Formats: sequence, C-alpha cells, structure tokens
Amino acid sequence: MANANYNELSKQMKEIKLLSYSQGMLYWDIRTYMPSEGIEQRGEALAILGRIIHEKNTSKKIGELISQCNKSDSGLGQIQKRNVELWKRDYDRETKLPSDLVVRLTKQSTITEHKWQEAKQKQNFEMVEPDLETLVELVRERAQALDAEKSMYDVLLDEYEPKMTAAGLRSYFTPLKEGVIKLIKKYQDMVADNPPNISILNKNIPVDQQKQVSKWIMNFLGMPPNRSRIDEAEHPFTTGFAKDVRITTHYLDDDPTGAIYSTYHEGGHALYELNTPEEHWWTGVGETVSMGIHESQSRFCENIVGKNPNFLKYFYPNVVQKYMPAFKSLDTDTFIKTVNAIIPSKIRIYADEVTYNLHVIFRFEIEQDLIAGKISVGELPDIWNTKMEEYLGMKIENNAEGVLQDTHWYAGLIGYFPTYVLGNIYNSQMLATMKKAIPAWEDQLALGDFSKIRNWLVTNVQNQGSIYDPIDLIKNICNEPPDTKYFLDYLNEKYSRIYNI
Amino acid sequence: MANANYNELSKQMKEIKLLSYSQGMLYWDIRTYMPSEGIEQRGEALAILGRIIHEKNTSKKIGELISQCNKSDSGLGQIQKRNVELWKRDYDRETKLPSDLVVRLTKQSTITEHKWQEAKQKQNFEMVEPDLETLVELVRERAQALDAEKSMYDVLLDEYEPKMTAAGLRSYFTPLKEGVIKLIKKYQDMVADNPPNISILNKNIPVDQQKQVSKWIMNFLGMPPNRSRIDEAEHPFTTGFAKDVRITTHYLDDDPTGAIYSTYHEGGHALYELNTPEEHWWTGVGETVSMGIHESQSRFCENIVGKNPNFLKYFYPNVVQKYMPAFKSLDTDTFIKTVNAIIPSKIRIYADEVTYNLHVIFRFEIEQDLIAGKISVGELPDIWNTKMEEYLGMKIENNAEGVLQDTHWYAGLIGYFPTYVLGNIYNSQMLATMKKAIPAWEDQLALGDFSKIRNWLVTNVQNQGSIYDPIDLIKNICNEPPDTKYFLDYLNEKYSRIYNI
Repeated sequence: MANANYNELSKQMKEIKLLSYSQGMLYWDIRTYMPSEGIEQRGEALAILGRIIHEKNTSKKIGELISQCNKSDSGLGQIQKRNVELWKRDYDRETKLPSDLVVRLTKQSTITEHKWQEAKQKQNFEMVEPDLETLVELVRERAQALDAEKSMYDVLLDEYEPKMTAAGLRSYFTPLKEGVIKLIKKYQDMVADNPPNISILNKNIPVDQQKQVSKWIMNFLGMPPNRSRIDEAEHPFTTGFAKDVRITTHYLDDDPTGAIYSTYHEGGHALYELNTPEEHWWTGVGETVSMGIHESQSRFCENIVGKNPNFLKYFYPNVVQKYMPAFKSLDTDTFIKTVNAIIPSKIRIYADEVTYNLHVIFRFEIEQDLIAGKISVGELPDIWNTKMEEYLGMKIENNAEGVLQDTHWYAGLIGYFPTYVLGNIYNSQMLATMKKAIPAWEDQLALGDFSKIRNWLVTNVQNQGSIYDPIDLIKNICNEPPDTKYFLDYLNEKYSRIYNI
Repeated sequence: MANANYNELSKQMKEIKLLSYSQGMLYWDIRTYMPSEGIEQRGEALAILGRIIHEKNTSKKIGELISQCNKSDSGLGQIQKRNVELWKRDYDRETKLPSDLVVRLTKQSTITEHKWQEAKQKQNFEMVEPDLETLVELVRERAQALDAEKSMYDVLLDEYEPKMTAAGLRSYFTPLKEGVIKLIKKYQDMVADNPPNISILNKNIPVDQQKQVSKWIMNFLGMPPNRSRIDEAEHPFTTGFAKDVRITTHYLDDDPTGAIYSTYHEGGHALYELNTPEEHWWTGVGETVSMGIHESQSRFCENIVGKNPNFLKYFYPNVVQKYMPAFKSLDTDTFIKTVNAIIPSKIRIYADEVTYNLHVIFRFEIEQDLIAGKISVGELPDIWNTKMEEYLGMKIENNAEGVLQDTHWYAGLIGYFPTYVLGNIYNSQMLATMKKAIPAWEDQLALGDFSKIRNWLVTNVQNQGSIYDPIDLIKNICNEPPDTKYFLDYLNEKYSRIYNI
C-alpha cells in the first residue's frame, strides 16, 4: 500500500516537473527566437501554465499522498524517504502561501522589473522606487507567511540554499572579505608600476569566429550535442533538464572573452543539469540541490578551469588564436595575465575572480538590512555608493552603474546573491579534494583534456543530485564542512603563480 | 445572465487556445532546435499538456456553459451564436474520446514521427512499421469513438475539412483526374521533341543566398517581422497564431527552387494565421476554418502567384538572379518554362502544379483503404509503388522516395492529404472572382507588387475566420459552390499561354 502511494506521488511529481520543463522551454523561446510582438500572448499562456502547476503543487491529493508516505510503517527505502522529505518541503512552502499573495507578487515583480529597465536606462532610481518598496513589502509578507518564527532573511535564503542561514554566511564571508582585501592590496602594490590594460582584449571578432570557439568549449566540457545546444540571448542563462539542456551566450563584436567565459559558465550549469542521477530523474533526488552548488559547477568551469594558466597555455594558442586570428598579435603570457587581472569594476558581471566576491558580500549586507527593515528602499542608492567606495574604492557616478545595475532585487529575488560566492567557496574546497584524486589535473588541462576532471565532478557532485543538502554534500565530498580557507588558498596560490606575488 | 455565461465560456476557450498555442510551440521546437535525445521527455511533457487540454475541453463546466448559451432565450448575437456552435462541435467531439486514448495517441504519434525521420534517412520502412501499425490502430479507434455510425474515413476527414465527405471528394477528384491526365498527355506530346530539363534548376547555391531570397519572399508577402519568423526544418510547416506565427523551410545546396517555393507555400499559410479577424482572436470565429481553405491560401502564394509567368518576369531577374548569381547563365523564359514544366516526380513536394494532384489522389485512395482495414500497414510500400507507376509512370527505387517521403501518416494525420487538392480547387475559383475585382492583377505582379492581391485575400478569405464553413465561404465569395472546372480552366489557360498548347 505504501508503495502504491509512493508510486502515485512520484507520478504526480513527475507530471509537475514535466510541466515546469515545458514552461522553461517557452521562456527559453521568449529569450531566443520569439517574434517581439508575441510577448503578450506568450505571457498569458505562461500565466495559465503557472496556475496549473501551482494548483497541482498544492492539491489535496498530493498532501494526502505525502502524509501516507510519511507514516512510520511506510516501509520506504532511504532514497524514497528523501524524496518524500523534499516533496513535503516544497508542498508545505507552496500551501503556506495565500494564492492572492502569489498573484500580487508575480504581478508586482513583473511591473517592477519592467520599470527597472526604464529606470536603469534613464539612470533614475526614483522612477522605480515606489514599486520596489511595494515589492520588498510583498517579499517580506511572503517570508512571514512561509515561517513567522524564523528571521525573514533566513526564510528567503533557504529557498535558494537549503539549510543555509545569514549567520552561516557571515561566518564564511567575514574571513573571505579580509583575505580578499589583503590579496587585492598585495596585487595592486605589485602591478603599480605596470598596471594591466584589459582593453587589449576588446578585439573586433566576427560572430562566426566566436561561435566556433563556443562550440569548441561545449565539446571540451563534454556537453553531448544530442542532448544540449547553445543559442544567443541578451542575458546568458541555462535551462532544461536531463536530455534537453540549453545554454545561451551573448556575442558582442568587441568583447570576445565575454562570450567565451559565459559559455564556460553556462556550460558548467548545463553539465550539472545533464548529470544529475538518471535513475532518479523526475523525482526530488534527481534534481540539482541548490543555487550555491549550481554556481560551484559553473564557476569551476569558468574560473578554476577556464582561467587556469596551464590550461590557457593550451586553450589560447590552439583555440582562441586558431579561430580568432586577430589574437595572433597578442602573446599567451599577456593573455593569461590580462584575463586574470584584478581590476575593481563598478559592475559585478564584469568583475574579476577576486573583487567579484566583494560585490556579492556588500549586496548581502544591504539586503539583510533591507528585509529586516533597518534601511528603507529610498536609502539604497546612498548605502550602495558608500559600500562601493569602502569595499572597492570606486566612486559611483549614477545609479545605472550603482544600485540599478542588477535585475535581482527588482525581480523580487532577495537572498539570491550570496549563492554566487558560496559557489566559489564550495568549488575551491572541491578542488582541494579533487587534487588528491587527480594530482596531475593541471597537466591534463595543459593538454586540453578535461575528461578526468569532468568525471570527478560528475561522480562526486553532479551525480549526487539532491540526496544530501548542500552542506552535507560538501562534508561527504571533502570530509569537512564548508571552509573559506580553501578559496583564499586557491586565490593566493594562483596569483602568486601568475604574478609572482 | 446569458452574457455572463458566454463571457465565462469565452474565457475558458481562450485558455484552451493559449494552451494549444504553447503545445504548438513545443512541437515547433522538436522540429527545429530540440536536441535529438530530448524527444522522449518532450513526448511525455506534450502528452500531459494534451491531457490537460483534453480535460479542459471536456469539462462539465464547459458543457454546462454551452447548454446555457444554446438556450433559445440566450439573446446572443450572430457571431456569438456561431462561436457557441463551433465550441459545441469541438466539445461533442472531445467528450467522445476517452482520455487514455488521447494520451496514447499523442505519445504514439510523437514517437512514430521521430522514428520516421530515422527510417527515411536509412531508407528502411521496417524500422517504423510496428510503430505506424500501432498508430493507425489508434487513429481507427479514435474515428470509431467519435462517430461509430459514419465511415471512419469521413469522420477523420471532417476534422480537417468540416462537412466534407469521401463521396464529395470523389465528385471533385474524378473529373479533376481526367482533366489533369488529358493535360499531361497534351503537354507531353507537345514537348516530345524537346523535353524540358528541370535539372538545370539544380544549381549549387550557398544556403546564405537562399536565405536572402526567403527573406525577400516573406517581405513581398507582407509577413511582419515582429510577428513572424522563418527557420529550417526537415519537412516545412507553419505553426503559431495571431502575433507569433512561424514558418519553416528546408535549404538544400543543389535545389534552390525547393526552398523558394516552400517559402511561398508556408508564407501563404502564415498570412492566413496572421490575418484571421483580430476582434475575434481566441474565439472559434477568430480561427482559420479548414485545412482546405488553409491550402488554398498557401497554394495561391506558391502557384498562382509564385509560378505566374508575368510575376516571374519580375521575380527571376530582380530576386533570383540578384541574390543567386549562379542563375545569371539561365534566361528568364527558360526559367519560367522549367519551373512550370510538367514532369512526373516521385516526390509530392517537388511535383509540378499539374501532376501534384495525382500524388494526392492516389494517397487519398490508399488511406481510405488503410483506415477501412482493406490493406495493412505492411502492404503500404508495395501498394504505393504500384500506384506510383500507374498514375505517374514512375518506378520507386527505395521507400525513402516512396511511402516514407511524407510525414503525415507517421504523425497520425490520415484524411489530411485531400485538403491539398481542395486548396487548388478553392483557390482557382477564388482567383476567377478576384480577377473581376482586380483585372490588372497580373500587371501588378509584373511590377513585384502583391499588396492589392494580398488585401483581396485578407478581406475576402482570411478575415472571414471561421464565420462560415468552407463550402459556404466559397459560396459567399464566388456566388456558387466549389466546382473543379475553375481549376482545370486555370491550368489549361496557363499552359496554353506558356507552351502554346
């Protein structure tokens, strides 16, 4: 009987997951190929699909099946129990939200995101301020509806990174901030007489040539062509699941490294979606476990591999210079140094591997205070600018390059930013463990061979799906909980090697 | 009260239409961009979506709303009554289908169509035979569930061409077959000493050049770029609705006229989907009325316009020769004669305007027997080859150029082929009427101007949506019921002009 309930529950959850997959594909189409005027009818179609998914997710039937499966005599195995636990978590979450709040939030975030686009274009924060205020209020309502006992920020964070708390993040971010600032200082002293010029990377490269490099990268990463694809979109993203996983990149004529590194980044996300455990696909355990672990995989491919000096000794002459002849005038060593240059930027997505973390840490600090009501929406621009100067020594001239630069808050995504840095912390710790299993990992990269490294990631991380919560996954892989020191060690070692500092 | 019911019914029907639109986009994706291994999960996702649509279509609520709207004191207007009539027709149809049959059919046709692609590539009918057998059995089950009283073939036909019957088709096709065979004979005698050589059209043209011509055609036809697009697919098709309509074509290196005429053809379909009456979009009346009328529009653009000698005097030098310089060595008159040459082909989609009808007529004969159980799936290749020799004098060497050439049966579309010839019958009759309104239509085409002809088609045909059933629509436009003689007159006149026969 228990098994009959479990089987029925699995079937229902698979249907929901397949509908979400369809939804994802229709969003992919909006961002890649849909004729512009299709947006209104597509929006209506997606709203209906969204409502159907929500109704299924909160149906009494699923609630009853979960209760049945949760009985002590259910006789379910370990993995089955974990699935029920994951499904119950999502069910409880969905059913706690009054549907009028869901509707108001969806509507308000659509409006706010839309207003944000205009506000950013016009460098005018006041244009979006009242809508952002309403949105933040709704996000707070949402957090309280989900769990009135816990701090609102922790409730929001938990949706992106299960079991993570603000206190936990602070314990990681405090030493990280200190170490990163120390490294930046050391680097800046070192290059003071001869500062790197990153504009030498802005060569004019035809899109066709850039596409060939992206194709090479997908093949290098081991993305199977019959299960994945790449297209172009304004903002790169990854979507899909199992045997149909898609990445996008954005080709700019004068910024070829932009498309190269977004292909590595999205390719890393894609590998994770392609390699969750096949025997558990369409159940909870068969899904990726958190945004932080997702980012660990994308940033592993982008930074640990894609910007590794030994790998670049292979990749640059054999791929970049081969497919983009305009780079023939730039030598490998200069490319390595420039791609890895530490240069504070006002814009997060253009930041290097080191200063990037400070962008995220100060956003984390601001959004906590925002949700806790310690600061108001109106104060955001000033606080942003102050932090930017304090952390990165940059003076913000207008809000478009300041508080308006990222879409997240205006889309109602609060508690999301920290997962980017968690990805860095996780993946450098994974790397430390991987090195013991594959001591020659950099020699392999120097030959353009990613296969053993890929296998290690697939087996130890991606194939674990959602069997464990993120922190437990790290413990299992690395035999200790997440620890920031690995990321600092990785950065210090890398920069001492490239720049002899 | 009546209006409240009608409004609620409209809202429900719009939701269903939006879900069908989503479904259509997910099918479009299968045929254009989906990684091949995604087919299984996509099939499952579409099956669920199909079931949801079916459940909505057959819900008690909709049945009750229809009954309420059908009451004599409903106070609905003409158009509203027609909508209720159309919705009732679909509701009655859908409620007769058991939902497990719907799911099995959706799944089986997705699988069969996918297998067909491989089978065609490998010229191996046996690869797809068992799946086609299952599919045909399901289609028969479907016909019987819809109406056990009527012949299965008539039931299926009625879905593509409302109110049409096999007997009706025979009354059109018998004189048509006779007239066509007579014309072919006359033509062949005429060119016996100097048979046209259509291989001179098989120039090697880079796909980029072919794409420029397709783009020109879309613009010529008046397909708005922000509401439509073109992509590549194995078998050209059109999908979408209202503000998001998509055509596909197939570029072959050595067959540029293939892509040219499929772009005209699909472009004609797209015009119809783009130009149904906007004030009735998402209701029954706002939809295209039948496949036969659909084909009348596509074949109007493809043949009546695209192969018109006067138009070719403009199109060939100003577009074909301009974008495809390899054609500079071929003069306009030879191009006109060759594009219009009557030369039996093994492949329907490559057939000329005259022999094309025989392709369809023998498929019509075969599929009637297949559905009636008079012939088995296993016998299809032999029967196909025999008919091909009898009707067109062609010897089929392998099944890829025989029974595997078209996707229709493998997608579960049985009863669909005759609508192609209905399109020819309808559109030549429309042309006869249009000539009275636009006597100078060919002079306009000679200037590369389609706008007045387009307006006539939009106003008289496309903008009528589904206000009238197809035969009534023809009666309204042409003041008489469909009559094969207009098509034969059109063909005889055209060929006597081009070839002086």
